[in-house]
Order: sequence, then structure tokens, then C-alpha cells
Amino acid sequence: MTVHAADQLQSVIDRTGSIACVGLDPRPALLPSAVKEAALAKHGDTSEAVAAAFLAFNRGLLDAVAGSCAAVKPQSACYEAYGFAGVKALEETVRHAKALGIPVIMDAKRGDIGSTAEHYQQAFLGAAPSLGGKALPGLACEWLTINGYLGSDGVTPFIGKVPGTGGVFVLVKTSNPSSGELQDVRVASDVRCPMSDVDAQAVMEVTAQLVREWGSKRIGACGLNDVGAVVGATYPDQARRLRTLMPDTIFLIPGYGAQGGTAADALAGARSDGRGAIVNSSRGIIGAWQQAKDGDWAGAARGALDAMNADLAKAR
Amino acid sequence: MTVHAADQLQSVIDRTGSIACVGLDPRPALLPSAVKEAALAKHGDTSEAVAAAFLAFNRGLLDAVAGSCAAVKPQSACYEAYGFAGVKALEETVRHAKALGIPVIMDAKRGDIGSTAEHYQQAFLGAAPSLGGKALPGLACEWLTINGYLGSDGVTPFIGKVPGTGGVFVLVKTSNPSSGELQDVRVASDVRCPMSDVDAQAVMEVTAQLVREWGSKRIGACGLNDVGAVVGATYPDQARRLRTLMPDTIFLIPGYGAQGGTAADALAGARSDGRGAIVNSSRGIIGAWQQAKDGDWAGAARGALDAMNADLAKAR
Repeated sequence: MTVHAADQLQSVIDRTGSIACVGLDPRPALLPSAVKEAALAKHGDTSEAVAAAFLAFNRGLLDAVAGSCAAVKPQSACYEAYGFAGVKALEETVRHAKALGIPVIMDAKRGDIGSTAEHYQQAFLGAAPSLGGKALPGLACEWLTINGYLGSDGVTPFIGKVPGTGGVFVLVKTSNPSSGELQDVRVASDVRCPMSDVDAQAVMEVTAQLVREWGSKRIGACGLNDVGAVVGATYPDQARRLRTLMPDTIFLIPGYGAQGGTAADALAGARSDGRGAIVNSSRGIIGAWQQAKDGDWAGAARGALDAMNADLAKAR
Repeated sequence: MTVHAADQLQSVIDRTGSIACVGLDPRPALLPSAVKEAALAKHGDTSEAVAAAFLAFNRGLLDAVAGSCAAVKPQSACYEAYGFAGVKALEETVRHAKALGIPVIMDAKRGDIGSTAEHYQQAFLGAAPSLGGKALPGLACEWLTINGYLGSDGVTPFIGKVPGTGGVFVLVKTSNPSSGELQDVRVASDVRCPMSDVDAQAVMEVTAQLVREWGSKRIGACGLNDVGAVVGATYPDQARRLRTLMPDTIFLIPGYGAQGGTAADALAGARSDGRGAIVNSSRGIIGAWQQAKDGDWAGAARGALDAMNADLAKAR
């Protein structure tokens, strides 16, 4: 990679015509029986069986959605729950996605400071030093979700490197019901967003201002930058306001579909040129086989993705 | 475990007389040559060699500090940087600490919502379901550090379970230089901390209020609860104020030693009865061998821990 993460993502969007992101959040209850049975037969009722089933499921899903989505987003927690076997399945999943040319957004919501953030950079976007001083590549994803509560110290280790080393999506306004407990808290009336020349009204807007500042150092040729923002589809009014504070920021938008956000809600924060938004769906796509009758779970996922693409196209 | 995490930690503090937490943050540059050379000879210059060296180093450190510290705190990022091999070394490290009876605080700063937080609970504190519906134990640590930016949805999955399933430390005021960019932002004058009956002055105090609320459901026999707070030693004035907002909360205090905090700074937020504070040191202990002359790295760590215990005892 020698290009901005933002430019690479935009080129995939231009090529596929899709702004959909497919969430790869497998769990045993969401696996088709055939996939479970094959793994149980080979590994017994172990963590290795879960990991093997996740990987087989993901490979089938990735083959089905390649060329029709903007990105995939594995939820790291699903894999970490099964220890190193799960982490190995995650690594193989990323490798398969990369072989298919699909950008990977690792949803790990990491957030730590200084040298620790550097280790996360190594794990998810870069490479770590060996005992002899070699570079040992990590997952080398295109993007990583991060938490900005610790301020710049926790973010610059990811974006301080030259372009071509991946991008981040910083949590700004999350899609969950309790996100307002901290994110919506009103700030003092003289707290400013200097880059937007307005007063910040809430904590999430202070975060948005920081995101804009961080991104201003990593603007790609497409006009968007490598420091994106997570902005939930379940809060369209806030998304519109956040767009004015972050005009050149890519929004990663969870909460479409299963969580209740419509296509119009999801795109409330898109730019007027239609750029700068990718919309995630997890259960709606990878769980679509539960509504199908013929056992073709990969086909069901592709069908659900096609329907999501059409739904989003109508709202754009 | 059938007791509150807070009671178990307090009993270890009572038994050892120590409120020190030893940070297990290995990295190649911090490994004694003998440890590196043994791993290189066996595994070549690979991720597996790094993982083997980390594990050998940690085992020696754990044997040296057992009985003289309140807890150990592995930094997950250091291990994740080496993929599944690193994660396996982390699992073995936790197992070794548990065998020695040392409480483990996993420093992973996770933060996600609903079912995803449940997966992290499974990974670090509990057990995950197998394909056949069995419980597959995860790391089963005593504590996990978490990020509260997402509100209650991201926290209750960890503490909604019955006592005996571990505790959490929520980031409130972190020790790093830029922690104030978000945490110190002043909130509107009418934002209240109802449990403390005062006005919240800054974002970190809103977080503190949430921590107090979450902890009020998990109070142990010792009077402290299972929802702790991360409060950096580098901000003693804020720590004093935060103590008034969180009287029954255990503070996990990073920033002592290498980051600049003195023993008095670190204990600024301790309760008047001396309880409710554990102080972390990472490099100061595990890197103490760099100042030693005789190659006894485990002995150097123990010596540094003894000195830290004495330093903290003077300030208590």
C-alpha cells in the first residue's frame, strides 16, 4: 500500500458502486448447521471447532460478497472469545479478504497511549519488530476502529506514519441506546470547535473537532482523509450536525437494519456529493440464511447485500 | 471464584501488605539477551520466538514477584502485536499467574456494546459457548480495563453477571499528557453528579459519576466494589477530586515511576483509610535488569518491587 486509505476505499466504492460494509460477526448461534457439523466432525466440541466453523463461514461469505461491497468489517471480539484459535481464524479471514481485494475495517475499538497504541498499530495495520530486528507483518488491515477518549496520544501512533499505512475510524457518536450518557453531555458554552468556527454543544462534538484536526494531516486525492468517524445510523439529526463539523471525514455508519436505522437515517450524514459514508450491516447479511429455505447461506448473504445496495442507492 | 473481585483483591493486599501492581508489558527491546537468545535458538527469528521469549520472561518475573504484589497487569497490545502466537503466550502467562494466586488485571481497554461486550466478557473474564453449547472458558482474569465512552450498554455486560465473575476498571482520567483533550473538557454548568450531589465540572467527572452508579450494584464485603476506575498518578489534584465523587471505588493508578508520578502523587486519590488504590509500575520493575550488572533479571525485578513497596508504604 502506498496510497491513502481514503483513496483506496473510494476507488473500491467507484468500482463496485456500493457503499455497503459487510460485518463479519460470527457466533455459534448464527452458523448454518452444515458449517457447524463439518467443524464438529473434524475438531470435536472445542474452541478449534468454533474457529474452523467461523473461518469456513467467512470464506463462503467473502467469496459471495466480493465485488459488491465497499469493505468488510470483522468484529474482533467474536474471535477473541475463542482465544488464540479464534485469533488465528481472524487472521485467515483477513488474508482471504485481502486476496479478494476487499478493504478490511478491523472493528476492535482499541484505544491506548504512546507505545501501547504503537503495538496496536503493529498488530492491526503494520508490522512488529522480531527479536533480531526484522519486521514481522501483522494483520495489515486497511482500517481500524479506535476510541479517542485518551486524546491525541492514543491516535497519532496510528496516523503519524506516512500515508499507505492504513486509516482509522474514531468513535464519535455510537449507535447504541446509551451512547448519549457521555457523548451527548452538553459542554460549557465557551468550548469551541476552532476548525469549524462554532461552539461545541456536546462531548461528541469535541471528539468530532479532534477527528477533523487529526484528519487534516492525512487528506487523500479524493478530498477525504484517513481519519474517519463512527457515526450511528440511529441518530440522523446528530449525524447531520456532525457532518458540518467534519466535512472531509468518512463516516462509518453502524445501526442500519437490525438496529433500526433506515437507509435515509444512515445517509443523513453523507456529504452533498454523496461521498464520505459507508454503511455497515452485520446480522442483516450474514444471518440472512435464517430466512432462506434452501440452505444456500452464501447465496442468501449475497441476496441481502444486493437488496441493501438497492435500498441505499434509492436513498442517495 | 464466588466472591467479589474487590474482596479478593483486598484479601491479597491484606496478605501481601502490597498495593503494587506489576505491569507485564514485554517488548523485544526490553528482554534480557539470555532470554532472547534461547528463544531465537529454538524458533528462529519468528513471531513464535518473540512469544516464547515473552512467556519465559513473564514466568520468571511472576515467580519473582509472587507474594509481594497485589496484582499483575499484562498489557494485551504487546502480545496482540505478534498475532495468535502472542495471544497464546498471553494465555499461558495468565495461567501461570493464576497458579501462583496472583490476581490478573488484563489491560485491554476494551469498549463495545451489547452482544459485542458480551464476547469480550467471555474472552477475558468468563466463558464462550461451543458449537454444541458447552462453556469454553476464556482467560478468566479477575479484572479487565474498559473504556466507558459508549455508556452503560458497554459496561453492564461485564457487571450484569453475579459477583464472582470478575471486575472492571473503567478509564476515568488517564495518565498521558493529552488525556485532557477530552477528559478535562468543562461541561455545562447544570450537569449534575446526582449520587454525589455536586455539579460535574468536566467530562471525566461525568464518567466518574457513571462508574459510581455501576459500582453501586456490586459492593463487596470490604466496602469497595467491582467497578474500579483508572486514575493516573500524573494528575494528583484531579485524583483527589475524583475520590470525592467515587468514595467506594478502587483506583488503578498508572503513571508511577517511569511516567513521572511520585508515591505521594499516586496515592493522592487513596481513601483516608488507605484503601481503594493500587499503583502500577511496568518498566520500572520489568526493566530493572537494565540497571543491574549480574544478569539476574528476575532478582532485579523483585528488588525494584521491594523498593516500590517501601516507597508506597512511606507515603501511605
